[in-house]
Parts: sequence; structure tokens; C-alpha cells
Amino acid sequence: MAAVTLADIVARLGGELSGDAQTTIFRIASLDKAGPGEITFLSTPKYQGKLAATQAAAVIVPVDVKSVCPVPHIATPNPYLYFARLAQWLNPATRPLPGIDPTARVLCEVPPSVSVGATAVIAAGANIGANAIIGAGCTIGADVEIGADSLLHANVSIYAGCRIGARAIVHSGAVIGSDGFGFAREAAGAWVKIPQSGRVIIGDDVEIGANTTIDRGALDDTVIENGVKLDNQIQVAHNVHIGADSALAGCVGIAGSARIGRRCTVGGAAMILGHLEIADDVHISAGTLVTKSIVIPGSYTGSVPFLPHADWLKNFARLRHLDAMADKIRALETRLAELEKKSS
Amino acid sequence: MAAVTLADIVARLGGELSGDAQTTIFRIASLDKAGPGEITFLSTPKYQGKLAATQAAAVIVPVDVKSVCPVPHIATPNPYLYFARLAQWLNPATRPLPGIDPTARVLCEVPPSVSVGATAVIAAGANIGANAIIGAGCTIGADVEIGADSLLHANVSIYAGCRIGARAIVHSGAVIGSDGFGFAREAAGAWVKIPQSGRVIIGDDVEIGANTTIDRGALDDTVIENGVKLDNQIQVAHNVHIGADSALAGCVGIAGSARIGRRCTVGGAAMILGHLEIADDVHISAGTLVTKSIVIPGSYTGSVPFLPHADWLKNFARLRHLDAMADKIRALETRLAELEKKSS
Amino acid sequence: MAAVTLADIVARLGGELSGDAQTTIFRIASLDKAGPGEITFLSTPKYQGKLAATQAAAVIVPVDVKSVCPVPHIATPNPYLYFARLAQWLNPATRPLPGIDPTARVLCEVPPSVSVGATAVIAAGANIGANAIIGAGCTIGADVEIGADSLLHANVSIYAGCRIGARAIVHSGAVIGSDGFGFAREAAGAWVKIPQSGRVIIGDDVEIGANTTIDRGALDDTVIENGVKLDNQIQVAHNVHIGADSALAGCVGIAGSARIGRRCTVGGAAMILGHLEIADDVHISAGTLVTKSIVIPGSYTGSVPFLPHADWLKNFARLRHLDAMADKIRALETRLAELEKKSS
Repeated sequence: MAAVTLADIVARLGGELSGDAQTTIFRIASLDKAGPGEITFLSTPKYQGKLAATQAAAVIVPVDVKSVCPVPHIATPNPYLYFARLAQWLNPATRPLPGIDPTARVLCEVPPSVSVGATAVIAAGANIGANAIIGAGCTIGADVEIGADSLLHANVSIYAGCRIGARAIVHSGAVIGSDGFGFAREAAGAWVKIPQSGRVIIGDDVEIGANTTIDRGALDDTVIENGVKLDNQIQVAHNVHIGADSALAGCVGIAGSARIGRRCTVGGAAMILGHLEIADDVHISAGTLVTKSIVIPGSYTGSVPFLPHADWLKNFARLRHLDAMADKIRALETRLAELEKKSS
Repeated sequence: MAAVTLADIVARLGGELSGDAQTTIFRIASLDKAGPGEITFLSTPKYQGKLAATQAAAVIVPVDVKSVCPVPHIATPNPYLYFARLAQWLNPATRPLPGIDPTARVLCEVPPSVSVGATAVIAAGANIGANAIIGAGCTIGADVEIGADSLLHANVSIYAGCRIGARAIVHSGAVIGSDGFGFAREAAGAWVKIPQSGRVIIGDDVEIGANTTIDRGALDDTVIENGVKLDNQIQVAHNVHIGADSALAGCVGIAGSARIGRRCTVGGAAMILGHLEIADDVHISAGTLVTKSIVIPGSYTGSVPFLPHADWLKNFARLRHLDAMADKIRALETRLAELEKKSS
Repeated sequence: MAAVTLADIVARLGGELSGDAQTTIFRIASLDKAGPGEITFLSTPKYQGKLAATQAAAVIVPVDVKSVCPVPHIATPNPYLYFARLAQWLNPATRPLPGIDPTARVLCEVPPSVSVGATAVIAAGANIGANAIIGAGCTIGADVEIGADSLLHANVSIYAGCRIGARAIVHSGAVIGSDGFGFAREAAGAWVKIPQSGRVIIGDDVEIGANTTIDRGALDDTVIENGVKLDNQIQVAHNVHIGADSALAGCVGIAGSARIGRRCTVGGAAMILGHLEIADDVHISAGTLVTKSIVIPGSYTGSVPFLPHADWLKNFARLRHLDAMADKIRALETRLAELEKKSS
């Protein structure tokens, strides 16, 4: 990244500058490691104590702590957001040259601004937006649409007929449009496949993590709205609907036809069962199994504490007898009431 | 899909038709969305109330509700199965032309009916059955066998020596035959790899989901019997044996040498530990950790309910003291018995 | 594998031989299946009863059970480790010929001893060590370093700038260097991406399972030390640090900036939250959610027992009322104490 001054930064991104505006910044670094020529940020008051000892050239601070910062600093209501914008500006993505690698296999027209990596495969009828980057080894099925300025990293697989909006980022190994898991069962137990004839429809500004899978719908479509962020190794089953600006952490699974609202967050390895609905602004903690609809915004959790193994053995084995414990308490209450009556 | 009449459908698939046999069907749709020219189905009595308002041209109904359906309908004991068969008939899979794409790298003979996609790689000694489709970017190792009419979607990886039966469907990103996780440990803690010299042997009519992984056996083989259906992102460790017609939902993990019976179902994100045995016709609920063998058919569950976060904090923290609670109940019982004795 | 005698084996690997040193061994087999010409091993005293009936030509046994073995045997303190070393010797990996497949796309210099598979893609500036094997369909980003004697199976994706040490084994579908899941949030709920400018740095002798994903760091690097073994479908988030010789089983997830010590083991599907620290020599059981730091070595568990579904319903529903149960117990104790006082 090129060098900029604090004056340049504030001119572009706003904030209230204290200290030498000509201080030069070469790099962003974490609060613990930042040194001369580096800018860092204080995202939570929790780490405020580290400010005094910082070797950074400058710090982005919340409005309310600016007075205690010993080096030049920029005060802003949301330092983490400011840092994100600064990092985007100072670390512009390097992009490959436009054009189609000679080892790619492209069976449709693509705009000249598009870059298609080595051994990528794009089937007939696909529609690739301007400035899109299709990474090495990607396979794009027939009639797929990919919006302008989207970036597919290497080895992404997109099945026929799916649509991805503009400015998407899709990481390696992601699979979009695989068949939903739909089978009817014969009396003797054998499964009969239900053709999955829906599609996956993904909005604008969506990011999809490495090895995440999104199944196509059975009859209707699977839908991911604008601004959704999916981490790695998430499984999205057929006919799921995820509302705008929701963010799901790694290893989450969402079963068929679940409907997740807008601005929801889902913690790592949470599992959401099918055919249920989650309201807007719901937050699911890591490791939680969501087994029924949630209609009230808020935070929900269902995980168990961990313990040293011996303590766990002693305590968690009791779970098998919790109902009996409740019965014993009720019996004690009855007997005690009886005695109390007698003795009064 | 081409248009058919209800008479055509019943002639092919059976069922008892009520209403105009010449009603024309252009498409299958869900019960909520079906309109003119579309056929839908009622799979459970739960949705029977929706029948009265349906705009569908026709409905597939269970035998016992046929009387209340206001539009032409086909009565059958299992509407969902009927729908599956109808959908298969009306949505025949489109298949690529036979032949080897010029960018594929094929080092064995393949039948002329086989289709090999762009940049696919098939090593020497592989044996590909008639009419098989090998998707773009697949890599097939040496001496692999793939049965007739099997379909590998794009970017599937199959290691040397593995066998897949006829009519398989393998989704993108699936990996078959990777090394099992087998190491011995030196005294100082370093791991010594145990060569994984078994194979993966997969029967006929198996479907394998996107990004599912199946490890090869250590000494013996990993075995998936006929008719097994694996959803996306399932992990099958070395030497696992899955019985015929079992179906496993997304994100399930099965540890080494576990043996799962026939016609079992496993819910999403369930985890089955190693070196145990699960009988035929066992059903494991989503999110359950199976830690020991199950010898009696039936349904088994081991997950915790979720709660609003504050309620969860209050209740689940008690789990650390469940043993102490049981002790207190026992102490109360003793003291109460003592009092009761005195007062009698 | 070639035939060897027990004398050959002991000459190479040590151990105390009893029985005919000229016994010829053609293959290694499991204790249950071993027959003539095959050597097997007894790894735990638990299976000692099977020794009497073995048809094996020879058995590797622990020092303390050697007397009861009816066939030639080699006594050693750790038969499983001995078996691992023997198996490595008798099953040398077959390796492809050195050289670059004509369908590969290699934009850097590679040593003549390196083997690059069909349709593999290696970007400019990459540095591939001697004798490395790059599997078919792999994509290696710009400036990646891969150490000598490393093996990448087919369809591995490595992003620009990452480093892998010597003697690595990376399985198909693994993704190394994808962006960490880092976003700041605007007041209205939209997410702003934080560029992930760190790298993934992997030591020597590391094995990475199929479809495992390792994200690059945000500002600093994600680090995997020497000798770490990662099973399939593990998710390692940005800025995680995993200490030397730790081994993680399948489906484990590790959230951002978690720091795991040396010689740790993590059971399948365990989930480790972010920004916490786990000491050396900690063992996490399968299915455990680690929500805070662990400073004392030992075993830790947090999973629930499974039950027949009806029993589970009865017992686990009580979890929603555990706090109320504790209150009832306390009330009973108070009332009982009152009565006891009266009656004394």
C-alpha cells in the first residue's frame, strides 16, 4: 500500500483528528503490534489500557476515549467501521488482467473486462457481468448469471441456472446449486429421488465462504437476499430463504425450507431445522440447535457448558434422570406439606 | 417439460382419478403456489385445509381425503411417492452429449456413450461404465471403477482404487477415498502416519452430496451399501460401514469403524462416534451425539432445547451442579423420613 | 508390497522376536481378518482374548502379553506405533513421474523433481520445493511457498501468499488462505468487509484433511505449527494459532484468534470459540463447545447423553426449568429446617 498522511485519511473518511496531520502512515496493524509508520484502532473500551504503551504512529479511537491517547489519533463513533473503510482504501484488491486464459473453456460470450482464470469452464448460455473475475478451475453451468464486479475464487462450482448478483465474493470450494436432499420412500425402504428443479437466487453484495454449499430448490427457489455474509463450510438446504444483511458464522447448517429474517446473526456450528421461521434481528448463539420458529427478536442459546471430564461424567449423567429428580422434588413437597399441617 | 393429461398420468403411474381425465398438466408446483395448468400434491393431512382454496388444475391426494378435494384429483396411498415418480417422469435430466471434451485429460479407454466434461482428469486403469457422465473438473484416480449411468457433477475428486456402483449421483466438491485419520503416537507426542491402504466401496443407486468426504479404509475397506443417500458436507471416516437404504442429512459426521445398519436415518449435524454399531431401522435426531452402540430399532435423541439467552444462562448454568442437586434431594429425603418417623 | 521375513522386520524396527525368524510376511491385516502370510497387531489388552484363535502368521504384541501368543510374535512397548512404522515401510507411497503434465498451467519455475498433475494451475512467483507432488486440478496462488516432499492431492486450492512447510500432505478439496470472516457493521445493519491481508503459515510435517478450510489472517497470520494433523472438514478461522503436534478430528470448528496449545487433541465436531486460549496437552471430547480459555492440562467435555426419543422428551424438557427446580430444593430445605427446629 502507498503512504498516506493522517490529513489524507481524515479528508477521505472523516473523523476528528488530534495531533500532527502530516504524520505518515504506511500500514495498518493490530493494537498489540503496531509500531512506527503504522496506524491501529481501539475497537472496545476493554483494551483502553493498552493505549498508553502503544508504539503506533496513530490510533483510531472512539469519541469518548480520545483524551487519553498519547499519540496522534482520529476520533470517530465506530472505530472498527472506520478501520474497515481505511483498510479497504489502503489495501485495494489486486486483480488479474482482463481476458480469458488459453486453458479456460468458455462456451459463451463474456465482456472484455472479465477475467477468466486457467482451466475455468463456463458453459453455454451463461451471462457474466462486466469486470467479473472467474478464478482458476471454476465450473459455471449452463445459463448461470453472475453480476458485475463479482469475484469467484479458484475451484468454485455453480450448477446450471443459478443466479448471483453484483459484487459477490465466492470462496474456493463453494458449491452453489447442488440438488436438495429430497426423496420419497417406498414401503420397503428404498428412496425415490425428487428432481430438484428450482434454482439458487443470490442478491447483490453477498459473500460466500470456502466450501460452503447452497442447494437449489425442489420446486421453488433457494433465495439469499442482498448483503448476506456466509462464512466457510455452511450448508444451506433447498428452499431456504435468508433475509438481507444476515451473517452466518462457520459450520452452520440450515435445513430445508427454513426462513431466516433480516439482520440476523448465527454463531458457529449452530443448526437450524427445516420448515420454520426466524424473525428479523434474531441472534443465535454458537452451537445452538433451533428446533422451532422464533418470532421475537433477541438472542437465543441452547448449548451446554463444558467441564473437566470427571465433573462432566458426574453431572451430565444426571440428565438421564432429570424427570425422576423432578418427581422426587414433588413428592418431597407433598410429604413436607403433610408434616407441616400436622405440626401446626 | 411436455404437457400431459391426467389420463396419461394415471395410465403410467396408477391411482384413482376423479374429475376430467383430459385436464392438461404443464408443470408441478407446491400446494401454496400451484395455479392453472399445474398439478400439486397433499402429502400430509396437516395441510388438508389448503385444499379448498387451491387454484391447481389437479391434486394428488391420500386415499382418505379424496372426497373433500374441489378440483380433479388422483387418490393414491402415498402422494409424496407418487409426486416423486411424476416429477421424475416430467423432468427428465438433460444430459450432455457423449464424448470427451478436448480439454479433458483421459488416460484410459472409456465407452463411446460416456460424457467427459471440460478439464476432467481420468487416470490410467480407470473403468468407467456405459452412459456415465463425468463433470467438468472432476479428477478420477488410477484404477477407479464407476458404474453405468452414474453422474459425477463438476469438481468431484475420487482417489485411486475406489469403486462406485451403477446409477450413482455424486455432487460437486465430494471427495471419495481420501486417507483416513490414522496415526500412532511417539512418546514425545509426535504422530506417525499409518498408511491407509483400504479402499472406498460404494454400491448401486447411491447419492452423495456436495462437499461430502468419504475416507478410504486403513487395512480393510470403507463400505457404503446400495441405495444409501448422503446429503451435503457429511464426513465418513475410515472403515465405516453404512447399510443399504440408510439416509443421512447434512453435516453429519461418522467416526472410524462405526457400523450403521440398514434403513437408518440420521438427522442433520448428528455425530456418531467410532467403533460402535447401530442396528437396522434406527433413527437418530438432528444434533445428537451417539456415543455407544444402539441395538434396538427406534428413535434416539440427545440435544438440548434453546431458550432466550437470559433464561438459558439461568437454567443451563445449573448443569454444572446437577450432581449436587441430586445429593441435596437425597439429603432432604433422609431428613424428611426421620421427621416423619418422629411425628408418627 | 514385497515379502519380508520376521527377521527382516526386527532387524529394521527392533522388538523382541519369539518364533520362527524366517516366517514370511506378505501383508498386514487386522486382528480379526489376518490369515496365513499376514502379520497383525494387538494394540490394547482389551482384544487379548482374540489372540488364541488368530490365523495370522505373526502378531505384534505388547511386552506384557507376549507369553500367551500361540504364533510367532514380536514384543514391543507400543505395538500400534510399531505397526505404523511397519506399514509405512511395507506400503511405500506410489508417486507419479516427475514433470509437468501438458494440460497444467505453470507460471513459475519448478524443480525438475516436482510432479505437477493434469490441469493444475500454479501462479507466478510460487516456490515449489524439491520432490513435491501437485495433484490434478490444484490451484496454487501467486507467491505461495510449498516445502520439499510435500504432497497435494487433487483439487486443493491455495490462495496467494500462503506458506506450507516440508513433507505436508494436503487432501482434496482443502482450501488454504481464504478470507477470514471479518466485517464491521454500519448503523443500518449492512456489513463492510475488512480486507484480510494476513497469510496462512503452515509448518513441517502437517497433514490437512479433505475439504478442510484454513482462513488467512486479517492483519497478522494464521499459524499451524509443525506436526499438526487436521482431519477432514475442519474449519480454522483467521488468526488462529495451533501448537505443534496437536491433532484435530473431523468436523471441528475453531473461531477467530483462538490459540490452541501443543500436543492437544480435539474430538470430532467439537467447536472452539474465538479469542480464547487452550493450554498445551489439553484434550477436548467430541461434540464439546469450548466457550472460554482452558489453562490446566487435562480432558474436558460438554456433551449430552442420548436417549430413546420418549425418554429424552421427558427428561430434557426439564432443562427449561432447572433453575426453578433448584429454587424448589432451596425452599424445601428452608421449610424442613423450620420443622426440624420445631420438633427438636
